[in-house]
Amino acid sequence: MSSQFSDIDWLAINTLRVLSVDQVNKGNSGHPGAPLGLAPAAHVLWKQMHLNPENPTWINRDRFVLSNGHACALLYSLLHIVGYQYSIEDLKQFRQLDSKTPGHPEFELPGVEVTTGPLGQGISNAVGMAIAQANFAATYNKPDEGFILSDSYTYAILGDGCLQEGVSSETCSLAGHLKLGNLIVLYDDNKITIDGKTEVSFDEDVLKRYEAYGWETMSIENGNEDLDGIANAIQKAKENKEKPTLIKISTTIGFGSLQAGSHSVHGSPLKPDDVKQLKKKLGFDPEKSFVVPQEVYDFYQKEIVEPSREANMEWIKKFKEYQTKFPALGSELDRRLNGELPADWSSSLPVYNPTDSAVATRKLSEIVLENIYAALPELIGGSADLTPSNLTRWKEAIDFQPPSSGLGEYSGRYIRYGVREHGMSAIMNGISAFGANYRPFGGTFLNFVSYASGAVRLAALSGHPVIWVATHDSIGLGEDGPTHQPIETLTHFRALPNMHVWRPADGNETSAAYKAAIESTHSPSIIALSRQNLPQLEGSSIDKALKGGYVIHDVENPDIILVSTGSEVHLCIEASKMLAKKDMPVKARVISLPDFMTFNSQPLDYKMTILPDNVPIMSVEVAATSGWGKYAHEHFGIDRFGVCGKGPDVYKYFNFVPEGVAERAEKVAEFYQDRVVYSPLNRALPFNTTTEF
Amino acid sequence: MSSQFSDIDWLAINTLRVLSVDQVNKGNSGHPGAPLGLAPAAHVLWKQMHLNPENPTWINRDRFVLSNGHACALLYSLLHIVGYQYSIEDLKQFRQLDSKTPGHPEFELPGVEVTTGPLGQGISNAVGMAIAQANFAATYNKPDEGFILSDSYTYAILGDGCLQEGVSSETCSLAGHLKLGNLIVLYDDNKITIDGKTEVSFDEDVLKRYEAYGWETMSIENGNEDLDGIANAIQKAKENKEKPTLIKISTTIGFGSLQAGSHSVHGSPLKPDDVKQLKKKLGFDPEKSFVVPQEVYDFYQKEIVEPSREANMEWIKKFKEYQTKFPALGSELDRRLNGELPADWSSSLPVYNPTDSAVATRKLSEIVLENIYAALPELIGGSADLTPSNLTRWKEAIDFQPPSSGLGEYSGRYIRYGVREHGMSAIMNGISAFGANYRPFGGTFLNFVSYASGAVRLAALSGHPVIWVATHDSIGLGEDGPTHQPIETLTHFRALPNMHVWRPADGNETSAAYKAAIESTHSPSIIALSRQNLPQLEGSSIDKALKGGYVIHDVENPDIILVSTGSEVHLCIEASKMLAKKDMPVKARVISLPDFMTFNSQPLDYKMTILPDNVPIMSVEVAATSGWGKYAHEHFGIDRFGVCGKGPDVYKYFNFVPEGVAERAEKVAEFYQDRVVYSPLNRALPFNTTTEF
Repeated sequence: MSSQFSDIDWLAINTLRVLSVDQVNKGNSGHPGAPLGLAPAAHVLWKQMHLNPENPTWINRDRFVLSNGHACALLYSLLHIVGYQYSIEDLKQFRQLDSKTPGHPEFELPGVEVTTGPLGQGISNAVGMAIAQANFAATYNKPDEGFILSDSYTYAILGDGCLQEGVSSETCSLAGHLKLGNLIVLYDDNKITIDGKTEVSFDEDVLKRYEAYGWETMSIENGNEDLDGIANAIQKAKENKEKPTLIKISTTIGFGSLQAGSHSVHGSPLKPDDVKQLKKKLGFDPEKSFVVPQEVYDFYQKEIVEPSREANMEWIKKFKEYQTKFPALGSELDRRLNGELPADWSSSLPVYNPTDSAVATRKLSEIVLENIYAALPELIGGSADLTPSNLTRWKEAIDFQPPSSGLGEYSGRYIRYGVREHGMSAIMNGISAFGANYRPFGGTFLNFVSYASGAVRLAALSGHPVIWVATHDSIGLGEDGPTHQPIETLTHFRALPNMHVWRPADGNETSAAYKAAIESTHSPSIIALSRQNLPQLEGSSIDKALKGGYVIHDVENPDIILVSTGSEVHLCIEASKMLAKKDMPVKARVISLPDFMTFNSQPLDYKMTILPDNVPIMSVEVAATSGWGKYAHEHFGIDRFGVCGKGPDVYKYFNFVPEGVAERAEKVAEFYQDRVVYSPLNRALPFNTTTEF
Repeated sequence: MSSQFSDIDWLAINTLRVLSVDQVNKGNSGHPGAPLGLAPAAHVLWKQMHLNPENPTWINRDRFVLSNGHACALLYSLLHIVGYQYSIEDLKQFRQLDSKTPGHPEFELPGVEVTTGPLGQGISNAVGMAIAQANFAATYNKPDEGFILSDSYTYAILGDGCLQEGVSSETCSLAGHLKLGNLIVLYDDNKITIDGKTEVSFDEDVLKRYEAYGWETMSIENGNEDLDGIANAIQKAKENKEKPTLIKISTTIGFGSLQAGSHSVHGSPLKPDDVKQLKKKLGFDPEKSFVVPQEVYDFYQKEIVEPSREANMEWIKKFKEYQTKFPALGSELDRRLNGELPADWSSSLPVYNPTDSAVATRKLSEIVLENIYAALPELIGGSADLTPSNLTRWKEAIDFQPPSSGLGEYSGRYIRYGVREHGMSAIMNGISAFGANYRPFGGTFLNFVSYASGAVRLAALSGHPVIWVATHDSIGLGEDGPTHQPIETLTHFRALPNMHVWRPADGNETSAAYKAAIESTHSPSIIALSRQNLPQLEGSSIDKALKGGYVIHDVENPDIILVSTGSEVHLCIEASKMLAKKDMPVKARVISLPDFMTFNSQPLDYKMTILPDNVPIMSVEVAATSGWGKYAHEHFGIDRFGVCGKGPDVYKYFNFVPEGVAERAEKVAEFYQDRVVYSPLNRALPFNTTTEF
């Protein structure tokens, strides 16, 4: 059987190898082993992909995720050679400060679909991208009329590390359930991890496991040489529209190096002599570095870029026709591709008056979703098996399910994530990274957002505007007890850069939280919501809450300021009223501070009107006090684990009742009476000390 | 074939059912569904277990883990009936404040082996217990001489939720690799989760997946009735010493209820009428509650408790003989069973002088481990596939591996965890919970301890004194870039109650961190360690560091106090020296504060000598500033993500150089010159506001 590959393919493959090794050696840091072993598979895979370096965000491009992100020298080599905005000079700056070629691929770089490096995330993002593509295609394709606006594939390469991480187990199990035939994963089975041979910890039958998940699996015995085998497997995988595919490719880590096949070639540059013999072996001049034969550039242009560019142009033409033929859908899609929300989407956000009844903020969240889902086709969400508790599903929702299951449709926008908080979160990142303005949300208990810390961090680092609907946000959840009651959680996520942590106090603040979270373009949001009912507050409004912090209950010349969030704001207001009526009245202003990050971004003079000099400030929140030092002198919080009991009993146990707040406020006001008090915002150093000073 | 079960077994099973339902209904909160469905399996399982209610910590007891902790009413029923310290009155307090029967099982309660509820943790703890048992048995059994001091089994019951969580995938894959034949897991396949039928998100072939992991699997079609089937399966599982076993048992959730088989029976009390018909159906008086027929008590006494008690007594006799025959091992084991460390274990901790060379604290950690492993047979550790980076393996270590693998021995104390940070951490909790004074440690990068947040939290909540060796603890790791550089991590774990977060500055502080962590009996520890070299500091000592915070570089009448940790302490000392030499000298005291929690526990007057009134205090740490408000007025930190580059370049980029510290210190000293300054410790409210006031 004749091969579809020839010498030029091998020249291209070997160019990828030496160019990757050159980067690692120039940077004197990095991972040469995986690029050397993976170059053949990556070449074969890319050769058949649709991608347009001139238009890296083309919605119908194929996505490529390098889940083993430490192999990024290979990715940068590919991106450079096919014509993304990476010069040879950029490659020479590999892993250096301010370079375009950092130690792990970062989302904002051209051609990098998602940030990878933390293992297990990339493949899980890829599942999210495949979900997004399936939803997008089911929503906008009109096959009967000849319009296929989306038929792209999501490809990922991963190694043993990604397969060992639990998050990939979660997402790949779900991918099998969802029958994501548009997802094709290449497993670099090189038998080596940092600790040595994989057999020291990982001798499970991976393909059997993936078959158990409902995947198609294939195996390539000689991944170092069998280009046709790899190509045929990818082709076969593409033809199977009913299942995601895992192709195990046996490779030699550090192929061609004197250290080939050992873990010493994984994470350190090759020795100079080794580089020389490698280049010689692969037909390159051992004395030269960063050499790309012109014919390799030309080859990739001809094989990949030109057909992709044509396909992209054809797509643009088609989309114009589509807009004529389907004006409503067409303009909706056009809007989404421009990253714009409907102009008036937020007009349907509910507004409340103090006379409205007390409602749990999780329920208020449900009302928001009910009010906005129709206007926002980009809203796609679900719950990690807590739908009836998180209240994340609007009544008319259709589940995102394979049509053959009879349980829903791919055009459905409600995802049954199963008990998989980390996977859900990594999938949300992938859906967001797909494009088309997707706004994914996912429900779980606030305490279990922590299970997803790895993915939450990457959302913030990458700037994916995804949303966690985090209900049962405190000891107020009651009987489930300390295993379910968050204490450190708010502190944790508030300390995470670029992360909004909304904790609304009532209906208006819940609407504000959603308005901000959905209009956010570069920051994720956690919306922490109560299990228990909360009154609608006098003095709250969407606009005020959108500042992140505001005076909700004012008094003249306050003796103390109580600053609080969520379910404790009304306690503070009641305490303030109680204090005003005392024989020795204490005047207490109350500040609601639903989101630290938004409040931080306000001008200092606004913030100083809220938290001025000369008044002691006490924070009131049923959680760890850590992190409140930036806004308050004194803290009423819970620096221990919670207890099991009825919600109101637990609040009482910790003294979080109006009397408990008032008693402490009195004590604080008295303590500071004879002190000079400066606002915590009145400081020598800027608030967020970074490089600026 | 005649059954080994009779009417009394069914009476016992139905007693468990109604007693569990009574608890949930009395508490008006909880989960009746799983107890009703699981009672037959639990009964059959417990009937053959070795457990001694009079001696709940007997080291050779069988362990039982209810991984689906929400089914705890069933566990409390069992514990009561077999004679643990639970009265009927305790059961009536189900899920109420201060009860012994909280909403999820808690570690400190009699007969509860581990805290469960957060899904996936219990089964993972069970893997840890099975590892501990295998290690314990291999270390102390002397089969040739007829001494089998340990041959217990670890049993777990789990549901779909635990199987969906990634952490269980990690640990069960490892359990298969490790061939833990002492681990037997019953899977309650009731086809229902909170979102409805499991088919909405979870239709993988679970048994096939577990076979892929290397487990033995079995299936019981009628788990509601087939007691012999369950018993035979357990017996067969016990006989297979080479593999862990998963037994899938098909049950009906809420068996006997009018809501049986639906998700509405999962998490809410049954309606009163439903309870009545259930009791009637099961042969109980519908008008009576909390009824346990005396014959059921008697039956369990005779079947379980008496044989177990005898076995326990026999064990004690055997152990006495053992101590005579193997005095060294015997006294070592006796010491461990008493929860004591060797009297002089810490004398081998290395001590350093300022003239000693600069060394990375991860390397200093390696030296500690090298120095102490021989004296501490209870030390058992490993790394999540970062051994050569974490430096967690002493040279003579033997890997904990199945002997048949040729890779190690069960008596080995170095665990190759694979790339499974969450799983490693949950396993550490399980090893600790096994008893015998085990001190498990696990290595990963500090940033990836976050992957394990779920298990870290449970370590703190349960008080397992486990240790994370968390290297590469800052931007100082350099080229791996922002995906690997922790920012929020220290803040997060410092806000977690009962969690030590050590960040030693040099060799003496590293020794101190280990001394504290290993001597801790009820708190876990993270030891955050640098990748880069750090100088040995003048003024550090093990004893001083053990206070959690101390003056490391003093000046008379300081103008400013710099408080710092780890790799930034030496920067502060250099800055202080630089400031002293200025034309307008600034006198800067430097405080090293390696562990917040330990420092917090010092008497206030000690703390006030360290952080007194009248001097401005600036924290200096290359991480989020959040949380430092309790010790400092001003913060020099990094409230954004890191950058990729060489470690020293990245430090410079963020101005973390002596000049950068000095410049800020000057500014702060000047700013506060004309202000009255109070120590952040000088407050109205107690430091950790809880119930005390």
